[in-house]
Amino acid sequence: MKYMRYRLDGRVAYGVLDGEAVHPVEGSIFGPHEVSPQTIPLAGVELLAPVAPGKMIAIGLNYKQHAAEVGKPLPEEPLLFLVSPTAVIGPGETIELQTPAHRIEHEGELAVVIGKRAYRVDEAEALDYVCGYTCCNDVSDRVLQRRDGQFARAKSYPTYKPLGPVIATGLQPDRTRVRVRVGGELRQDGATSDMICGVAGLIAFVSRVMPLEPGDVLLTGTPSGVAPLVAGDTVEVEIDGIGVLANPVAAAAAGGVPGGAA
Amino acid sequence: MKYMRYRLDGRVAYGVLDGEAVHPVEGSIFGPHEVSPQTIPLAGVELLAPVAPGKMIAIGLNYKQHAAEVGKPLPEEPLLFLVSPTAVIGPGETIELQTPAHRIEHEGELAVVIGKRAYRVDEAEALDYVCGYTCCNDVSDRVLQRRDGQFARAKSYPTYKPLGPVIATGLQPDRTRVRVRVGGELRQDGATSDMICGVAGLIAFVSRVMPLEPGDVLLTGTPSGVAPLVAGDTVEVEIDGIGVLANPVAAAAAGGVPGGAA
Repeated sequence: MKYMRYRLDGRVAYGVLDGEAVHPVEGSIFGPHEVSPQTIPLAGVELLAPVAPGKMIAIGLNYKQHAAEVGKPLPEEPLLFLVSPTAVIGPGETIELQTPAHRIEHEGELAVVIGKRAYRVDEAEALDYVCGYTCCNDVSDRVLQRRDGQFARAKSYPTYKPLGPVIATGLQPDRTRVRVRVGGELRQDGATSDMICGVAGLIAFVSRVMPLEPGDVLLTGTPSGVAPLVAGDTVEVEIDGIGVLANPVAAAAAGGVPGGAA
Repeated sequence: MKYMRYRLDGRVAYGVLDGEAVHPVEGSIFGPHEVSPQTIPLAGVELLAPVAPGKMIAIGLNYKQHAAEVGKPLPEEPLLFLVSPTAVIGPGETIELQTPAHRIEHEGELAVVIGKRAYRVDEAEALDYVCGYTCCNDVSDRVLQRRDGQFARAKSYPTYKPLGPVIATGLQPDRTRVRVRVGGELRQDGATSDMICGVAGLIAFVSRVMPLEPGDVLLTGTPSGVAPLVAGDTVEVEIDGIGVLANPVAAAAAGGVPGGAA
């Protein structure tokens, strides 16, 4: 099943995607809800990010080849950090480069959407707490990432976390591929089986540090091939079994963002 | 005015503290609300953390003497990171050391509670977006902080963010003191005027990275004197104009927390 979220006549709702049609959902997919047998055309709605997360937890350096390309040793344990949910945008929305003089890179990632509260869960049952999976582009300002050491600012500017297009249920998260194309050219192409810590292990690990709530999103790291984005690009993250998340890239209007001059 | 939050007969509500009495608040202090002229005794309610934050933004190394004591250069700009709101506990609740073999330290901090949505606000008007101020103990596992490099895990375990006892309005944030006592012994004592970036500057800076929402909490850094907590301690954070946040310290029951063995 593929859940999506959309706006129609000013109202935001979840839906179930069925080809080019949408079955509206009454209620939240994270609580009691009903799927309508009736449909509306996908072309007639505005597609939104499929979830508005409470928390976004990210994992650094979870693919060996990516750790190698950025010259970092492999972490002994998953490397956890938080990014701001205010950075989320939906499919088709514009990634606005806040500091266009900086090197700002795409990072295609498999994103786990939590379905049930998970606290200190075991790896063997961890996938039971998943609602489904979506694509994320973990856009990262490398200048600020290096300057701060902490990753939150470099990865939390508005528009730096495109999510979508849908939440796919029933996916086997360790048996899919993450691809990124910029202007149609393949830049990243990694099998999720190459993760250092797989999805179930990540959920178990994170759930021992902080309770995960329905709608929280866990980003599972990026494969090798990260490269800069510039204004005018269109960047696509594609994951088999989910779909394609495409976003245009533009320079943000000058907004007095700190750190942008250097 | 001093806002507080409490539980009575299983119901959670905000209140206004008046000596040893509480005026119940109808509604949320972050929206339309009414303060009852009637009172209930403070001794009869369970005091909670005065806010359940959506986001918690923390600032590292914002006092020169603390940067010196941990051997770090002064950041050129505020050093921003995020911690998980799931770590919040209230006054009197127990700080549970998840990895008792590690060095786990107190960090007394002035915490800013946001009252109105703040996005790209100027420093001159930044304090208009503040609801009030409370005390925070930014409990930090130094072993995990060093091992991860990223601070989120070391500072986000459950119970590691005591907040309270009240949200004081009308405080001049750059003209107060933060003191920490452990077992009655003074460990930290810093004037907020010694902050490298003052509160208005921090709000303006953070609001250029991510919109701040009502109820979000901004931790403004800790003065020098951080030192370990051990089971059996009672730790107090006192800020002039707010009050005393006191929490006992205990070892957590073994819960399979990762990274705890080393």
